[in-house]
Amino acid sequence: MTENIEILEMSARDSIQNLNVIVPTDAKLSLIDRAIDAGIRRMEVASFVNPRRVPQMADAEEVTARLRPHEEASYIGLVLNERGYERARLSGVNEVNYVIVASEAFSQRNQGMSVAASVENFSRIADANRGHLKLGLTIGAAFGCPFEGEVAFTNVLAIIETCMEFAPDELVLADTIGVASPRDIEQRAGYVVKSFPGIDVRLHLHNTRNTGIANAWAGMDVGITKFDACFGGVGGCPFAPRATGNIATEDLVYMAERAGFRTNVDLQLAINTAHWLEQQLDQTLPGMVMKAGGFPDMTGSAN
Amino acid sequence: MTENIEILEMSARDSIQNLNVIVPTDAKLSLIDRAIDAGIRRMEVASFVNPRRVPQMADAEEVTARLRPHEEASYIGLVLNERGYERARLSGVNEVNYVIVASEAFSQRNQGMSVAASVENFSRIADANRGHLKLGLTIGAAFGCPFEGEVAFTNVLAIIETCMEFAPDELVLADTIGVASPRDIEQRAGYVVKSFPGIDVRLHLHNTRNTGIANAWAGMDVGITKFDACFGGVGGCPFAPRATGNIATEDLVYMAERAGFRTNVDLQLAINTAHWLEQQLDQTLPGMVMKAGGFPDMTGSAN
Repeated sequence: MTENIEILEMSARDSIQNLNVIVPTDAKLSLIDRAIDAGIRRMEVASFVNPRRVPQMADAEEVTARLRPHEEASYIGLVLNERGYERARLSGVNEVNYVIVASEAFSQRNQGMSVAASVENFSRIADANRGHLKLGLTIGAAFGCPFEGEVAFTNVLAIIETCMEFAPDELVLADTIGVASPRDIEQRAGYVVKSFPGIDVRLHLHNTRNTGIANAWAGMDVGITKFDACFGGVGGCPFAPRATGNIATEDLVYMAERAGFRTNVDLQLAINTAHWLEQQLDQTLPGMVMKAGGFPDMTGSAN
Repeated sequence: MTENIEILEMSARDSIQNLNVIVPTDAKLSLIDRAIDAGIRRMEVASFVNPRRVPQMADAEEVTARLRPHEEASYIGLVLNERGYERARLSGVNEVNYVIVASEAFSQRNQGMSVAASVENFSRIADANRGHLKLGLTIGAAFGCPFEGEVAFTNVLAIIETCMEFAPDELVLADTIGVASPRDIEQRAGYVVKSFPGIDVRLHLHNTRNTGIANAWAGMDVGITKFDACFGGVGGCPFAPRATGNIATEDLVYMAERAGFRTNVDLQLAINTAHWLEQQLDQTLPGMVMKAGGFPDMTGSAN
């Protein structure tokens, strides 16, 4: 068995958005270039949100205007409402990703609207987008909410079922605050994969409680081949208390390749970028493989 | 499905052994008491090795002499040769655990003898022990060696097959340097579980490359219910370069209980002990759940 795993890089958006510092636009563009050089082909590069709420993303237009054209690269803009979608369309990103949070309290804090209003918004964005950009839909807090606790799977499913009518190109199940166990992934993601065979399902995992790599493995076990990650495991969510970063790109590459999968990422270049990012941010990142290295000769020959 | 997972605590031996500091005997005894209070029932408390090579274990006799008697507790002494076994027998521990490393280079560095000589040693220890203590056998570096790289599974199996004649009570497969992927666990541990149904198989996992919790999940998936762990993820191995600690007890408890298993450990008491250990050692530990807490109401009501 050799199956391909596609890793999408989140560091320029999900990670940077949660930092206390403002990362300069030039550094973001260097990060994006390094990701492409390491083999990343799809990458969230900006969030088109209110810069007063998320000042780290205030340069979304400048970042996207200055992206290095790359024939295989697909740059993704995150949007939380119609205004954001319009900005993303104008910016020249290749894909937009809309977020519906599966709990009311978190939806209010994240987007200032109810879940139903967010679904409505998505239907209008999908209409406006028809024939234009690749459109992803993320279900946030699909495994638990920092404000409400457990999120019933029936709520998650109801959102997905409604939104499938608006024909997104990809569905992303997000463990936004890192609470899922591998059993949750088997049950929820496994069910979605089986029930909606017409759509690609992607997992967006955070390693807050150290279950991230186990959850990725459980996802692979139910047939998911697309995963979000970020160099060094940097990041979090400004509206989710105690959230930490996505699973580290290098750690995911190590696990997947040692388990016999192929990935799109060169392990050594990913490790190098994680170290570079530590220097840029002047902070120690939680990734493990960036410290321990591959095994036995994986670094430098990951592909 | 609710299955019981048994977690054994390694912090007083595997973890402390690798620190640059000498932990005072009183602190070790406090750690052992806290483990028992948190629900741990089996625990490695000392390694009966040459104190000139491992000065952190020089107080093995004093620690074991001062253990709090507890009718359900079983204290384990690690031994690497016959001299160590004799010391352990005299010390009053309830179990001994012997280690055979599955690679020649590592066996020489760890025990100063070949793999064949170590197997011979084990046969003599098993003879001397007949009718006395519970006897565990750990296969070290069963998933990879820091000096030789890949360790062929045929070598691991040959050791196990030979040693089964000496009738150990438990077999421990150790990913000493934290290189295994969940696929390796499925394949190697899964094969051992199926091939030797008469013996309990335990997993000893390190989180060096962030695969530890994923590997525990893969172990549960092939029917393993016994796992080594240590509070806060502290530790490593003095003879294995860049090794880090066992998987964190709290992280394992969180994953297992959220996945529907029962464990013997109270999550909140384990978290408290991890924080206490950070203070004792004056270092930040890598455990994640000790920082993030349980979800949603798991802390304080883990059992």
